Amino acid sequence: MTDTRRIALLVEFDGTQYSGWQHQDNAIAVQNVVEEGLLKLVKKPTVVFSSSRTDAGVHAKGLVCHFDTDSQIPIEKFPIALTTRLPEDVSIVDAKVVPSNFHARFSSRGKQYSYYIYNNYMPSALFHRFSYHEGRTLNLHAMQRAAKIIEGTHDFRCFMAKGAMSKTTIRTLYDVEVTRSSLGLVRIRVRGNAFLYNMVRIIAGTLLYVGLGWISMDTVSTMLETGDRLLAGKTLAAKGLFLDNVYYSEEFNLQWYNKTSPFMDSIFTKE
Amino acid sequence: MTDTRRIALLVEFDGTQYSGWQHQDNAIAVQNVVEEGLLKLVKKPTVVFSSSRTDAGVHAKGLVCHFDTDSQIPIEKFPIALTTRLPEDVSIVDAKVVPSNFHARFSSRGKQYSYYIYNNYMPSALFHRFSYHEGRTLNLHAMQRAAKIIEGTHDFRCFMAKGAMSKTTIRTLYDVEVTRSSLGLVRIRVRGNAFLYNMVRIIAGTLLYVGLGWISMDTVSTMLETGDRLLAGKTLAAKGLFLDNVYYSEEFNLQWYNKTSPFMDSIFTKE
Repeated sequence: MTDTRRIALLVEFDGTQYSGWQHQDNAIAVQNVVEEGLLKLVKKPTVVFSSSRTDAGVHAKGLVCHFDTDSQIPIEKFPIALTTRLPEDVSIVDAKVVPSNFHARFSSRGKQYSYYIYNNYMPSALFHRFSYHEGRTLNLHAMQRAAKIIEGTHDFRCFMAKGAMSKTTIRTLYDVEVTRSSLGLVRIRVRGNAFLYNMVRIIAGTLLYVGLGWISMDTVSTMLETGDRLLAGKTLAAKGLFLDNVYYSEEFNLQWYNKTSPFMDSIFTKE
Repeated sequence: MTDTRRIALLVEFDGTQYSGWQHQDNAIAVQNVVEEGLLKLVKKPTVVFSSSRTDAGVHAKGLVCHFDTDSQIPIEKFPIALTTRLPEDVSIVDAKVVPSNFHARFSSRGKQYSYYIYNNYMPSALFHRFSYHEGRTLNLHAMQRAAKIIEGTHDFRCFMAKGAMSKTTIRTLYDVEVTRSSLGLVRIRVRGNAFLYNMVRIIAGTLLYVGLGWISMDTVSTMLETGDRLLAGKTLAAKGLFLDNVYYSEEFNLQWYNKTSPFMDSIFTKE
């Protein structure tokens, strides 16, 4: 008789080299490397379930995943023991034992994403890996006004990738915040209950176009009312997107939002 | 008859994929990609001379290089025109016309480097590309005391890579500063008139060992007096090192230290 535990992991990764969480033909998946690391650690094939699939090239500071194991490794040893069995661009920030009714994806109550636009005339060799470059000066005030229009409960099908499927396209965005650091980095931060395919990257593209003066406030309202994808902005590059946090109800005791990396964000903390 | 100008460039790069500034057999050099970009731009083979060779994997925010050209492209167009002809991990921050007696290397009066140590128990997938990970807590105060011993004019041969050659091993370090951000990132910042091969990475390794309690203050003094490389710390990984700035005398009007990227540094600005 074995004593099976369900374990949740907080995962950080630089997504540049990956096909996203899930396997695709052209690149290794983060899921693959986490499962391979677990195989080395717990000596049994283990399937890991994630909160999110994440697109190829998207980064994560706080992706949550879970698996079941009868390994008796103490839970506090898991993060370092597993991280040392992973490539350097994937790390396990924390691990917790969760009840057997917890599911990283289905128990999720919401998520936070951040999209970074590097808004200087000259592109940056150092920021390019983690941001989208826009050389023309963005109208931050207009972007902030448009962000307030997008907030709330709407049918967000205008912000869904063409050809994607979803039972319902109604979602709630609790908060859409646009901040600029003094150093030219603009952050679009979105918290919501759930997200459609490519939704954050299309919102970022729409706010970019608003910032460039190419989309008016009226058009933002119209695209939400009519669901017309053609009115919205382009899907911005995956490399500027970070999955920051996944939220769960308090019963699961996974208050992980203070544990995630300050990478790229310390710039904004004093504003 | 042509009107030849000497042009100096301020170069930023993510050094991960490069053999350094100069060509080596196993990787492309930054010099190669800059010269290839110039060939596309000015339509003539152009040799570029750099302030520094930089090791494979070292990053730069403010490497300076120069070249001669009879291209009549306006100087203010050079940064963007050349950057668009470079890979995304190399960018030209600024360009200036300099007198024909300017030489990026021989006119240099000094340089600043920063070395980043990510000092948290858990390694970070996002910071790993730009820092050395140390999981044990460093004694910052001890590192700061040792930094003051290293400052000044000394024979620094204890901090030179084995087998390296140099006419003289006497150098002057104007400033050796150790700072910790609240987020666990430790920065060792060194300004000096010139540097021996691997000198900053060995100083960083020595201060790391001091922070771990493995090297005493007395030993730091002794290694400077005796020049014994074996007393110093190991050469820390290239990936944690950034060439921040190169200094020139005022006649060349290259006050570029306010133009370099805030990448990794905004964390420290408020402390």
